[in-house]
Amino acid sequence: MTPQETVEAFIGHWNACDIDAMLALCADDIVYHNVPMEPIHGTAAMREMVEGFLANIAACDWEVHAIATNGNVVLTERTDGFTFKDGRRAAIRVMGTFELGAGGLITAWRDYFDMLEFQREFAG
Amino acid sequence: MTPQETVEAFIGHWNACDIDAMLALCADDIVYHNVPMEPIHGTAAMREMVEGFLANIAACDWEVHAIATNGNVVLTERTDGFTFKDGRRAAIRVMGTFELGAGGLITAWRDYFDMLEFQREFAG
Repeated sequence: MTPQETVEAFIGHWNACDIDAMLALCADDIVYHNVPMEPIHGTAAMREMVEGFLANIAACDWEVHAIATNGNVVLTERTDGFTFKDGRRAAIRVMGTFELGAGGLITAWRDYFDMLEFQREFAG
Repeated sequence: MTPQETVEAFIGHWNACDIDAMLALCADDIVYHNVPMEPIHGTAAMREMVEGFLANIAACDWEVHAIATNGNVVLTERTDGFTFKDGRRAAIRVMGTFELGAGGLITAWRDYFDMLEFQREFAG
């Protein structure tokens, strides 16, 4: 897979809520950074974070508005949609950078968004 | 200029605080959207906004960490640094999308960042 195909597949795994498939595309020492928060290091911590985050989520529908690649770096503009198990919906406007390593796995993921929007959308 | 060269030149004009040169690269009907805020329509409103924003700024140093192009869309990951006239400094971590029209001018600019970080950095 090209870097862009890997990122598209990764986003597809989010939309399938398939954490194992997501993590299979990530290097063990990935740095996962929701930029308004502290970065998370490694797939074990990432799994814990994502499992916690998805615990109340029934479905993800992340829409990619724009995607562009420069070497092993893929930049995305998205709206990340979520449906909670109680039926409520949320949407976060976000851009994210993905860096891929020599093995074709994601070594860094940085998402930029407004923390106030996130809090409003997830406050219920 | 290619779309990416145009965006790089546009960022260079920010770093020169040259509002006329910035606006010369923008289509008259540009939509300029700092995503946590309301979008601004047209170069006249954009000039007013940028002039107001730069009134207390002595220097900009915007650093581009990543840039990638797909057709007429250019995506950037940046740290936008500012030095105020009183010597204080601020830095905003941001990603931005630039869309270019048929004439090679910027028709849309959307910047994604954390409003809380912006407020902290600019609160002085």
